[in-house]
Amino acid sequence: MQLVSADDITAAQRRIGGRVVRTPLLACTHIGDEYGLDLWVKAENLQHTGSFKTRGVLNALLALTERAGRPAGLAAFSAGNHAMAVAYAGQAYALPTVVCMPPHAVPTKIEAVRRYGGEVVLTDDLLGTCEAIAAERGYHLLPPFDDPDVIAGQATIGREILADGPPPGLVLVPVGGGGLISGVAAAVRAAAPTARIVGVEPATANAVGHALRTGGAAPATPPRSMADGLAAPFAGRHTLAHIQALVDDVVEVAEDAIWGAWWELLDATKLLVEPSAAVTYAALRTGLVSAASCTRVVLVLSGGNVSPAALATLR
Amino acid sequence: MQLVSADDITAAQRRIGGRVVRTPLLACTHIGDEYGLDLWVKAENLQHTGSFKTRGVLNALLALTERAGRPAGLAAFSAGNHAMAVAYAGQAYALPTVVCMPPHAVPTKIEAVRRYGGEVVLTDDLLGTCEAIAAERGYHLLPPFDDPDVIAGQATIGREILADGPPPGLVLVPVGGGGLISGVAAAVRAAAPTARIVGVEPATANAVGHALRTGGAAPATPPRSMADGLAAPFAGRHTLAHIQALVDDVVEVAEDAIWGAWWELLDATKLLVEPSAAVTYAALRTGLVSAASCTRVVLVLSGGNVSPAALATLR
Repeated sequence: MQLVSADDITAAQRRIGGRVVRTPLLACTHIGDEYGLDLWVKAENLQHTGSFKTRGVLNALLALTERAGRPAGLAAFSAGNHAMAVAYAGQAYALPTVVCMPPHAVPTKIEAVRRYGGEVVLTDDLLGTCEAIAAERGYHLLPPFDDPDVIAGQATIGREILADGPPPGLVLVPVGGGGLISGVAAAVRAAAPTARIVGVEPATANAVGHALRTGGAAPATPPRSMADGLAAPFAGRHTLAHIQALVDDVVEVAEDAIWGAWWELLDATKLLVEPSAAVTYAALRTGLVSAASCTRVVLVLSGGNVSPAALATLR
Repeated sequence: MQLVSADDITAAQRRIGGRVVRTPLLACTHIGDEYGLDLWVKAENLQHTGSFKTRGVLNALLALTERAGRPAGLAAFSAGNHAMAVAYAGQAYALPTVVCMPPHAVPTKIEAVRRYGGEVVLTDDLLGTCEAIAAERGYHLLPPFDDPDVIAGQATIGREILADGPPPGLVLVPVGGGGLISGVAAAVRAAAPTARIVGVEPATANAVGHALRTGGAAPATPPRSMADGLAAPFAGRHTLAHIQALVDDVVEVAEDAIWGAWWELLDATKLLVEPSAAVTYAALRTGLVSAASCTRVVLVLSGGNVSPAALATLR
């Protein structure tokens, strides 16, 4: 399978530059000093809609428009961040959007989609309902992760990390369906051939790890984690191909390790990040991933969409 | 009384540059669009020790060292952010520090002082105990706000705001003892003579407002606010002089307005800020301070030292 190329990433940068937040890469000396690392965080929680998803969605929409003209509308299925990004993109380009969300989706995320003008359809059959609506209305179904344009959009994060300092020795990326790490790895691997690129997913939402071990199968049990942004039910074909070719390892962290890491990360970075963004620090903190002293380490903080109720669990 | 001059601020920039975080000025389109404002936040929650206090403390210590040589140690009194900044500065320059804190101080802030190597003395008589210890040990007592070097250190925030974009039309600054707004006003007023500079304090912790109305008297009742970083029992002589000369207005927000504004600000900025940092947005949100459409508005987010227990109140 064709992987996202350097030209694809450059094209994505051209398309979405100025339309997305050029998020800062911030030093995290508080934790870095403790572990003897040169630690940095890429603050994608500061991105429009509060997560990296906006990059991939905008690139996919603009690439589609270049190739085939403006779609009649956008359809998507997602429990959260992708839903918000699609609604945001629809609003930005005056396109109608419909988003299929599970009935148990966090109310604040449903509200956010509506605030961006998106129509919300609550359904247990996310993919089926979404495909039916897209076909009926002639809308473009914009996939959450398993799409080369989406991956190329997320890859702009890797380019920015490289532009903001020397090549990192270790990059840690949260993994759900694998779109973020596929993109980041495509960008970083090209410039830093010896960098270790490691994905981290919850042990109870391990679609990518399971697929890597079984040659592509989806886990038998549905994903369930406080890191709800990583609860993809299956990995993608495109994302698996990128991960197999470009990523050194994908590790799985225990649920209680995420919880402990989350507060420490909030307190150390002073960034409001969602639990999904804390899995990478959980992997460092529990020794699941180790880094040699003084290595330049970058944690990609994927998003910041957290509810007051979730924050209250920190008490 | 002599106010902090442009040269004083330039000297402070020279002294502390590279020793403090050059904090970003971040666009806050989420709230800005809602109010029709060009809204920006200065993220001092990302500063070392999690608040702007580190700037003033480092400048005061380095200015003292230039004038009189290295002190034997540092003494300070504070319930929180100033305590942490002094302990941090002591650790950075290998000076012993002792900090007098009230017995009801937040445990996480006491722990943070100790983590930076500071000695903590819990006492109800903050000033008396601190003066006695400083005299006995020959330590320098580093004041929390009423000091020209401290004010000049905080003024570097104003210089950075000016360096990062066109002059603002309105700058909103949280007010406790008044050190932060004195510094910011000294820097901004010089470059933006027509900018409105407005301070905001809790109605139940209004030392500066009370002093402005009474010619310098301290409030009869002790300060008490969820914005605990602003609970100064009295205003300073230096800070009052700066505020009278340079600040357009100091307004007081109700306690419940701070609470409501706090969550919205966290959610909109994705920055972990303490309640004290939300008083400015509370003043905007409740219409206590108004801004003409399209005005460039800067909110100074003073700090991010918040406990899990405080966050749990958001539920």
